[in-house]
Amino acid sequence: MGNPAFGAGIWHFATYVDRYATDGYGEPVTLVESIDRAGAVGDLSFVDLTYPFTDPGITLDDVKAALARNNLKVIGITPEIYTRVFAKGAFTNPDPAVRERAHDLITDAAGVVRELGASYVKLWPGQDGWDYPFQVDHHALWKNSLDGVGRLAEENSDLRFVIEYKPREPRVKMSFDSVARTLLGIEKIGLPNVGILLDFGHSLYGGESPADAAQLAIDYGRLFGMDVNDNFRGWDDDLVAGTVHPIELFEFFYTLRKNSWEGVWQLDQFPFREDSVEAAKSAIEFLKAVDRGLDRLDVDAMQKAQDQHDALTALRLARQALFSSL
Amino acid sequence: MGNPAFGAGIWHFATYVDRYATDGYGEPVTLVESIDRAGAVGDLSFVDLTYPFTDPGITLDDVKAALARNNLKVIGITPEIYTRVFAKGAFTNPDPAVRERAHDLITDAAGVVRELGASYVKLWPGQDGWDYPFQVDHHALWKNSLDGVGRLAEENSDLRFVIEYKPREPRVKMSFDSVARTLLGIEKIGLPNVGILLDFGHSLYGGESPADAAQLAIDYGRLFGMDVNDNFRGWDDDLVAGTVHPIELFEFFYTLRKNSWEGVWQLDQFPFREDSVEAAKSAIEFLKAVDRGLDRLDVDAMQKAQDQHDALTALRLARQALFSSL
Amino acid sequence: MGNPAFGAGIWHFATYVDRYATDGYGEPVTLVESIDRAGAVGDLSFVDLTYPFTDPGITLDDVKAALARNNLKVIGITPEIYTRVFAKGAFTNPDPAVRERAHDLITDAAGVVRELGASYVKLWPGQDGWDYPFQVDHHALWKNSLDGVGRLAEENSDLRFVIEYKPREPRVKMSFDSVARTLLGIEKIGLPNVGILLDFGHSLYGGESPADAAQLAIDYGRLFGMDVNDNFRGWDDDLVAGTVHPIELFEFFYTLRKNSWEGVWQLDQFPFREDSVEAAKSAIEFLKAVDRGLDRLDVDAMQKAQDQHDALTALRLARQALFSSL
Amino acid sequence: MGNPAFGAGIWHFATYVDRYATDGYGEPVTLVESIDRAGAVGDLSFVDLTYPFTDPGITLDDVKAALARNNLKVIGITPEIYTRVFAKGAFTNPDPAVRERAHDLITDAAGVVRELGASYVKLWPGQDGWDYPFQVDHHALWKNSLDGVGRLAEENSDLRFVIEYKPREPRVKMSFDSVARTLLGIEKIGLPNVGILLDFGHSLYGGESPADAAQLAIDYGRLFGMDVNDNFRGWDDDLVAGTVHPIELFEFFYTLRKNSWEGVWQLDQFPFREDSVEAAKSAIEFLKAVDRGLDRLDVDAMQKAQDQHDALTALRLARQALFSSL
Repeated sequence: MGNPAFGAGIWHFATYVDRYATDGYGEPVTLVESIDRAGAVGDLSFVDLTYPFTDPGITLDDVKAALARNNLKVIGITPEIYTRVFAKGAFTNPDPAVRERAHDLITDAAGVVRELGASYVKLWPGQDGWDYPFQVDHHALWKNSLDGVGRLAEENSDLRFVIEYKPREPRVKMSFDSVARTLLGIEKIGLPNVGILLDFGHSLYGGESPADAAQLAIDYGRLFGMDVNDNFRGWDDDLVAGTVHPIELFEFFYTLRKNSWEGVWQLDQFPFREDSVEAAKSAIEFLKAVDRGLDRLDVDAMQKAQDQHDALTALRLARQALFSSL
Repeated sequence: MGNPAFGAGIWHFATYVDRYATDGYGEPVTLVESIDRAGAVGDLSFVDLTYPFTDPGITLDDVKAALARNNLKVIGITPEIYTRVFAKGAFTNPDPAVRERAHDLITDAAGVVRELGASYVKLWPGQDGWDYPFQVDHHALWKNSLDGVGRLAEENSDLRFVIEYKPREPRVKMSFDSVARTLLGIEKIGLPNVGILLDFGHSLYGGESPADAAQLAIDYGRLFGMDVNDNFRGWDDDLVAGTVHPIELFEFFYTLRKNSWEGVWQLDQFPFREDSVEAAKSAIEFLKAVDRGLDRLDVDAMQKAQDQHDALTALRLARQALFSSL
Repeated sequence: MGNPAFGAGIWHFATYVDRYATDGYGEPVTLVESIDRAGAVGDLSFVDLTYPFTDPGITLDDVKAALARNNLKVIGITPEIYTRVFAKGAFTNPDPAVRERAHDLITDAAGVVRELGASYVKLWPGQDGWDYPFQVDHHALWKNSLDGVGRLAEENSDLRFVIEYKPREPRVKMSFDSVARTLLGIEKIGLPNVGILLDFGHSLYGGESPADAAQLAIDYGRLFGMDVNDNFRGWDDDLVAGTVHPIELFEFFYTLRKNSWEGVWQLDQFPFREDSVEAAKSAIEFLKAVDRGLDRLDVDAMQKAQDQHDALTALRLARQALFSSL
Repeated sequence: MGNPAFGAGIWHFATYVDRYATDGYGEPVTLVESIDRAGAVGDLSFVDLTYPFTDPGITLDDVKAALARNNLKVIGITPEIYTRVFAKGAFTNPDPAVRERAHDLITDAAGVVRELGASYVKLWPGQDGWDYPFQVDHHALWKNSLDGVGRLAEENSDLRFVIEYKPREPRVKMSFDSVARTLLGIEKIGLPNVGILLDFGHSLYGGESPADAAQLAIDYGRLFGMDVNDNFRGWDDDLVAGTVHPIELFEFFYTLRKNSWEGVWQLDQFPFREDSVEAAKSAIEFLKAVDRGLDRLDVDAMQKAQDQHDALTALRLARQALFSSL
């Protein structure tokens, strides 16, 4: 192993709005411009594209051309099931017509996955959940969550679907909120083509150990994708990977390598106030050090320390391997 | 339904130490004294007893006598698998001999459950988990957690085992940390006699909706017990039930009644600085209002509001029913 | 006392965007429409207006007319020092020209305060702070925060300025993050016309007791305004007041009344997915119960219980007064 | 600068109890044994001693002898104002007689400070605060906090008093909970001999930036002491320094050096399940790397990056300096 392929959500290279800076944290960026910025990073091989494509008049061929000139492939398509129409939920919307609309949008996205030869449809049901106590019937809500995903997986058995869980935001509480809950749902659905996309930051601020979460998903054969970033354990800050919690990020990748997990090392960062190309470069610079650190790590000594739950020795080994690799 | 039976962990009536007040928050209380205090509450029908019994020279007959004179039955036995010898874990201790010792202690506790005609052995593996990044092999740790519980459930198929999950404390991170993780483990074990004891406060400070957690456990047929208290969502404060989050407590009991869940309404409170009998009375006073509130609640209107995800209407209904019942 | 005047931030009646639902949680609402919605609540006497006014071609007279026909007065003006140009800070922007621009915008807002006979200029420096470790020179950042506010207060000594502190969002960490920090800054500035606007929810999710925060600000003579909402203690959810934490909300208003604090009871809610007029009505319905509850509360018994730190008695008194008033 | 003196709270070398492992996480350790363990670390020059001394029959001369043979000096004395008698508060106890008892104990501790030539009396009022809404009169509670400290500082004007603030534990909420609140109180007291002992972990899990907190205390001339450890931002885990948040620890020490703060680098760790001497050695090994990293850091480039709020550059500089120094 080693020499991982790097990827990024295309939104990494967009600009953002929030509920305060409603005029945005910069000039709007078209999809094609975003792809060019992704290309400018130099180390990226993959992007995840949101769907529908937003540039006026843009065609799939335009997208393909932009990707080709930047040497980028598409790892996944993320249908936007979290915009206005889905404000009260996509799979769990109280209105069956809206649930159907989510289904149709995702079905379209599945077609794009096939067209682009991507690896999966990514489901991030950020509006599915609740805000208040007593707001929903929890049995019905969860059932709708699983039925919606299961139906898609059944109808598109040639494709993979990945669920990106997250504790909250924009919904005050999301239904797919943790690795264990998501695995429980996936096992209930019982189809081979549904898995997890593990976002390091979501796991971290959800109170999980991302390394433990990855191990669990791997043990169920469901870790289909991952992405990284950083935060302060209280919110999905989507900061540059490695800036705040380098040790836990290293443990996360240690767990992946130990299990011979091979997949794209993706970035899911929101550089609100930073240059997006520089933010990606900074993260990749660190991730390369992580990769070298894994080469250097004395894995036998690490296993021995872990067998004894010897934290001090394990951390000394980890720190030396990582820090000397920067 | 209505007129629930009330219960309490016997530790509710003890005194406590912590890492600062090492001389304790009051004079030590014997088990027999604790049982008498539980009896003095007047509304309690059940207690959960820790095991081994700590009074010097105490016999099972002494315990039975104390219970009888206070009209108390035993709902469960909690083997103390979180004391010094188990500081690095019970089921997951790196030393196989300590794991065996945990097994033996729990097996003894199972005998006491039979003797007393109690409902279950309660497993609260508070030392099973980790403190540091890189400290443990997460695959092995989780496997040991499940193997340990599964072996006991298999050997004692006439008894029920309940796992009380908790995010953390005393371990910085506990392996059975959430409802979903615990259900995932229980399904993997695959035996009918392993279930969950849902502690309202653990669920709350773990970022769950306790009502949602209860529904999920019920949907898997695994909600074998529950207890209540309150906290500030950041730690297991074990405050008096109803004092801080009355609405969510009401939603929790609404969910139980809706599912026709019948079981003991238990208290798991640590009144460090309050009179323990008064603290129990205060909680039960509130729980009786909850029970009356459920009688008053317009459940059809509630279901209709929830079907629309109409939080404002649902909360108005809930508030009116609960508040007018105090 | 009793019969409080109610108010609301005008944004309560707008629609919102966030970083996911970039098409907004509803059709855009003009300022004039927002004012009409505020009028439709029926119980509102005051609004807080953001500045500059956003409707194309709108004049101050248009605003005055809309206010007049809805029987609304203006309590404060909130200059928008948190939009794109201020993304890296208003008072603390690294670029002195942007700091000057913030100064100019606030100065204009001060003029509008005078024009409308409002009570204060509200400063909410949501972009002033930092995102990453090592990002800023903390001495310089805090100095700029105080210099910026102090200069305005000095130049506009006929007006009041209120600082609305908040732990974070949109900035990962805000410089005016807590009641104590803000008071410390205000005392350093040393002018009589700078005070605090205490947002109940900011205090709650910042780990404060809002009642304690209010008492502290009052003890320094600096509680110039307040608003309420609710959340889950982890983020500024801006939910409807009273829906999650009714007890602490009641304690907050108890503290205000005890200190004979008289001012407008304002709403700062973001009803993303609810009807905004209904959300305001729901909150005010609860706040009226709070007001009646304060009339009923046995304040002597409460003081006596608090003198003994007797939580069980104090909470019983509070609960009975509040719950019976709904 | 450079070559800092290291110190530790003597409790680092004790064993612990908590509310679950009431038989303790190891055999009890006498004070003299603890001092010998501190000596065994090899790099420690200072200890902070709790008072009263707990070994039966121990004299001050015994303590002096143990210190002398281990080449240890005493930096401060920590009177135990958080044991059973003070369960409802020391300075803020509702019973004036208990408040007086706290005063007397601290006065005795002041005598020991003089005897041992220590630098300060450390005040850690862990039981001063509240658990429940409505429990206390916040005005009176805070007044008692300040009166208690102020009286001692006045009576012992030859000595320094340091307040170690902390958000919570054992009290659900502590009155001296943050750097800003503590500074506000100290300024109100208005005496030169009251300052802050800043615990890195308390600051971190209180949601502060420890570097910012240090800068603020320094700007008020009140940073009289500090200690370090680590945690997961949600509780005072008292883990080994540098194991989880190395970057923020480095920023903390960068701030101290930048301000030419000279003082002892103390450890406040609770190695529940680790060898205490090894835990201290591990921390000091990291702290020495921090010290070397500060020698290597390009401070001009750092200042320039911070003047621009350029996080990516600042973090690259910090990481390179620290990581290459291990």
